[in-house]
Amino acid sequence: MAPSQLKTDAAAIEAHLAAALADLPDLPVTHAMRYAAQGGKRIRGFLVLESCALMGVPRDQALWPAAAIEAVHAFSLIHDDLPCMDDDDLRRGRPTVHKKWDEATALLAGDALLSFGFELVADPRSHDNASVRAELALGLARASGARGMVRGQALDIAAETAPTPLSLDDIIDLQQGKTGALIEWAATAGPIMAGQDPAPLAQYARALGLAFQIVDDILDVEGDAALMGKAVGKDTDAGKATFVSLMGLDAARARARALHDDAIAALEPYGARAENLRDLAAFVIGRNV
Amino acid sequence: MAPSQLKTDAAAIEAHLAAALADLPDLPVTHAMRYAAQGGKRIRGFLVLESCALMGVPRDQALWPAAAIEAVHAFSLIHDDLPCMDDDDLRRGRPTVHKKWDEATALLAGDALLSFGFELVADPRSHDNASVRAELALGLARASGARGMVRGQALDIAAETAPTPLSLDDIIDLQQGKTGALIEWAATAGPIMAGQDPAPLAQYARALGLAFQIVDDILDVEGDAALMGKAVGKDTDAGKATFVSLMGLDAARARARALHDDAIAALEPYGARAENLRDLAAFVIGRNV
Repeated sequence: MAPSQLKTDAAAIEAHLAAALADLPDLPVTHAMRYAAQGGKRIRGFLVLESCALMGVPRDQALWPAAAIEAVHAFSLIHDDLPCMDDDDLRRGRPTVHKKWDEATALLAGDALLSFGFELVADPRSHDNASVRAELALGLARASGARGMVRGQALDIAAETAPTPLSLDDIIDLQQGKTGALIEWAATAGPIMAGQDPAPLAQYARALGLAFQIVDDILDVEGDAALMGKAVGKDTDAGKATFVSLMGLDAARARARALHDDAIAALEPYGARAENLRDLAAFVIGRNV
Repeated sequence: MAPSQLKTDAAAIEAHLAAALADLPDLPVTHAMRYAAQGGKRIRGFLVLESCALMGVPRDQALWPAAAIEAVHAFSLIHDDLPCMDDDDLRRGRPTVHKKWDEATALLAGDALLSFGFELVADPRSHDNASVRAELALGLARASGARGMVRGQALDIAAETAPTPLSLDDIIDLQQGKTGALIEWAATAGPIMAGQDPAPLAQYARALGLAFQIVDDILDVEGDAALMGKAVGKDTDAGKATFVSLMGLDAARARARALHDDAIAALEPYGARAENLRDLAAFVIGRNV
């Protein structure tokens, strides 16, 4: 079960993002943006809010980068689901944007959500100090682009037609781009906003992100479509190398647990104040593992 | 013929953007980004460099936002050319990215070029003052997203299936989003970097941007595919409302000339120093009109 703080934070992020998106002109493309920005576990936004809380950043400021990372995450899901990518009909238990609207609207809604993420972090209401806003924007650009998420997605596509399956190192590298970069940005938003050292939370995020992907692969084999809100068994059916196919189920579970311990160890400097981030690590690894 | 300063500036922007892109990891997606970022008239980048020159902003700083706007422009062309949008095979006289690579690579290369634009404006080397970088990032986010370019593209798509053709006001509104927002961002980059009033250059940009679109419609009817480096007569064949279809060729020409005069008038406060921006207006309207 999700920690109660995750639910509280998710609701606050949902409201902030919805209010920001309500400010856009009314068009099918903005309706699609609002639709795609609904729901989800909001783990990335939670990392922003809780890393900010840990550093004493006011919540009304923290909500801006939290909403931003969820806008960027929503963009990546819309484009991932397109026919030329994963060709998925279902996302978060509902029709994907290109099924509910059309491909052109999905393409543009994704593009505009990426721009909107930058609009939210650059907004003066997110932080008085412009150098913080510029640093967050720079980090978000790197994490979402060809050094980060797009790099991971490109490696993923290349793997589909590669003559040999990916190695474990390859798949860790791929994951660090595809999901790790944005997770690390989210977890370090707090120290960056507070002018503190981001290293411990970056270490936490790297362990958490990798654990998250391993658990995702485990759930893809074991999970239940209703629970996941998306198709399962897809990676296995496609003959894709996953942590489970490379390590076996037991070793994958053990690795996820070890990464959980690494994540907890990284939080040591913060003592009891990091409780919510500890709960998240337990929740991520606890997802049926 | 293009003013010689446009050629000089285009070469400098091309070199700056290529050097920045060379820093990215080597992958098909980054090769596609580099390919898409080559060529073009660089009118948006020219506006950045010349508005910066007018305001005394050092050229080595101005090249960052100039390269940024060209990265964002390249992103928009890749996505515009995709099968679900305009479905074009040819761009700048060469195969489009999805023809040379594939749709997934084109989608991701476009996404990453948009992020890369933000990376370039947020880079500390672009300006010492972080509030300038944050303001440029915020403006670029608004101009490229659902308030600006994506809005224009969405209105364009909606027009294709609308029961009645667009009116002149509709088409002006559409153009202001689709191309006007980024042109205005480019022309006001100089005053924003110099902490000066952007209003005169915003006025210049609005007249220039609209003139540019009218001339594009005229060339679509009259132009020569070899000269344009892309398919011509396409809008007319598709029965789309254009400035020419709504106003007739003579009135469209007259309107473009009047907008040229408006653009020149807006430069009045800058006297002789705005020569390069005057030349651009003459070049834009002079393109076979």
